[in-house]
Amino acid sequence: MTFKQKFETAAKKNDSLVCVGLDVDLEQFPAALKNKTPYEAIVEFNRSIIEATKDLVCAYKPNSAFYEAYGLDGYRALKETIKLIPKEIPVILDAKRGDIGNTAAMYAKAVYEEFGVDAVTVNPYLGEDSVQPFLAYEEKAVVLLVRTSNPSAKEFQDLLVEGKPLYQKVVETALGWERKADLLFVVGATYPEEAQIVRDMALEIPFLVPGLGKQGGEVEAAVKNSIDAQGLGAIFNSSRGIIYASEGEDYAEAAKKACEELREQINSFR
Amino acid sequence: MTFKQKFETAAKKNDSLVCVGLDVDLEQFPAALKNKTPYEAIVEFNRSIIEATKDLVCAYKPNSAFYEAYGLDGYRALKETIKLIPKEIPVILDAKRGDIGNTAAMYAKAVYEEFGVDAVTVNPYLGEDSVQPFLAYEEKAVVLLVRTSNPSAKEFQDLLVEGKPLYQKVVETALGWERKADLLFVVGATYPEEAQIVRDMALEIPFLVPGLGKQGGEVEAAVKNSIDAQGLGAIFNSSRGIIYASEGEDYAEAAKKACEELREQINSFR
Repeated sequence: MTFKQKFETAAKKNDSLVCVGLDVDLEQFPAALKNKTPYEAIVEFNRSIIEATKDLVCAYKPNSAFYEAYGLDGYRALKETIKLIPKEIPVILDAKRGDIGNTAAMYAKAVYEEFGVDAVTVNPYLGEDSVQPFLAYEEKAVVLLVRTSNPSAKEFQDLLVEGKPLYQKVVETALGWERKADLLFVVGATYPEEAQIVRDMALEIPFLVPGLGKQGGEVEAAVKNSIDAQGLGAIFNSSRGIIYASEGEDYAEAAKKACEELREQINSFR
Repeated sequence: MTFKQKFETAAKKNDSLVCVGLDVDLEQFPAALKNKTPYEAIVEFNRSIIEATKDLVCAYKPNSAFYEAYGLDGYRALKETIKLIPKEIPVILDAKRGDIGNTAAMYAKAVYEEFGVDAVTVNPYLGEDSVQPFLAYEEKAVVLLVRTSNPSAKEFQDLLVEGKPLYQKVVETALGWERKADLLFVVGATYPEEAQIVRDMALEIPFLVPGLGKQGGEVEAAVKNSIDAQGLGAIFNSSRGIIYASEGEDYAEAAKKACEELREQINSFR
C-alpha cells in the first residue's frame, strides 16, 4: 500500500483527519514517569498516548528533534515508538531533512530502512536532486515544506519571484518533478489564505497541516482551505494540544478527549 | 573560545584551511574492517583518519546522514568519533537542520549538548526564528546554507528576488540578524562566481566550502574567491577525496597524503 492509500484507509476507518504529533518533552510528563529513565518514560508515555488515540487518527507524526535531544535514550525510544504504532496507521517522521544527492540517499536509508516510517518531511532549499533519493522508495511519501507554520516563515517563503511568492514557486516546480504522486505539502494552519492558494494550485496533493492549537491556527479556516473535493486530502497535526492536554496521571485519557474533540471540530467543517 | 577563534588557532597552527569530511561508508572501507560490527569499523576507521590528519586540518566535519544510515551503531559511532577529535580542532556537524522555534531548540540541544560539537549546518528556508535557538548558544557557530554545491542548487537558490538571486537575499537578510558574528555561510566550491559575490557582500563571515574533489570544484577559483583579506575566512571541505584516497589497508597513509596535497594546493593560492 502506498502512503496515500494507507492514509485514506485510516482516515475513513477512524473518520478522522487528525494526526497526533509525538513531540516528547520529559518536563511535561506526569510525575509518575519522572523517576524512570528517559527511554522508559518516553516509551511508556507514547504507548499510552497511542493506545488512547489509535482509533481517532489518520496518522502519527513523531518529530525527530524531540528524540535527538535525549541522545541514545531518545534514539532507542523513537525506534520503539514507531514499532508501537499499529501497522495500518501511517507514520510521518518529521525530520525536515535536505542534503545533496549522495547524502540524501543516506538520510532516506535512515528514515525508511532503519526507522521504517511511511513518510518524511523534506526541505526544498537544495532542489530536486536533494528530494529524489527519498522519492526513489516505492510506496513511501515525501512531505515537502512549502509554507511553514512559524512566524518567520514569511522571511524567505514570501519573497516575490517572478511576481509570486517563493512558496508558490516551490509548489509549481515540485509539480513538475517525476513521482510527484508521492508528494505531500506542508502548509501551516497559521496561514489559511496561503493554504487556499496552494490547494487551488495542486488539487491532488495532500497537505500536512501543522500549527493548530498552541501555535494559534484556526480550525475552520484551515480545514475549509486545505481539504480536497472529497473532504480528504489534508492531515491536521496537533502535538502539544493533545499529548499535554493534562500533565497529570490522566494524561492518556485527556489526550483521547482532546483528540476526539479536534476530530469532531475538523469533521464539522469537512 | 568561540568557534571562530578555535578555527583560526587550528588553521594557523596547522597552516591549513582543510576540513576533513568524515562521511563514513562501510562499502568503501578496507577489507580488514569489513568483518567488524558497524560501530567498531566506523570508530576504528575514523580513529585512523583523525590520527593521520590531525596536524594538517583546521576542522573536521562528520555528516550526520552517514551515521544515521547505520542506526544505533551509527549513532554511537558518531558520538565516539566526536570524542576522538582533539579538543583544539573545531567540529562542524553537517546536519542541515531547520525547524520552527521550539523544535529548533531541541535540535540545538541535541547537537551542542548531546554531541558537543562546535558548529552545525542549518537550512535558512524557515527564517530567523528557526536559526535563533542555535545562535543562542555562546561560543557555538551556525553554518547557514547559502549556495550549496549540488547541481539542483540553482533551482530555488538562483531565483530572482527583487532583481537578485535568492541566495544573495539570504546573505543580506542573515547579515541583519542578531549574533551574526557567530554565522558562517556554506558556498559550494562548484560555484566560484557566486562565492566571489558572497565574499564581497559579507567580508567578515567565514565560508564553509564543500564540493572540492569528487564533486568537481576547482581549487584555485574556490580559494581565490572565498578567502578573506588575511588569507583566512574559509574552510575547504573534502570528504571522499581524502578518506577514500585508498580503499586498501593503507587508507590512513593515503588520506594523510591526500590531505597534505590539498593543504599545499590551497596554500599555494592563499
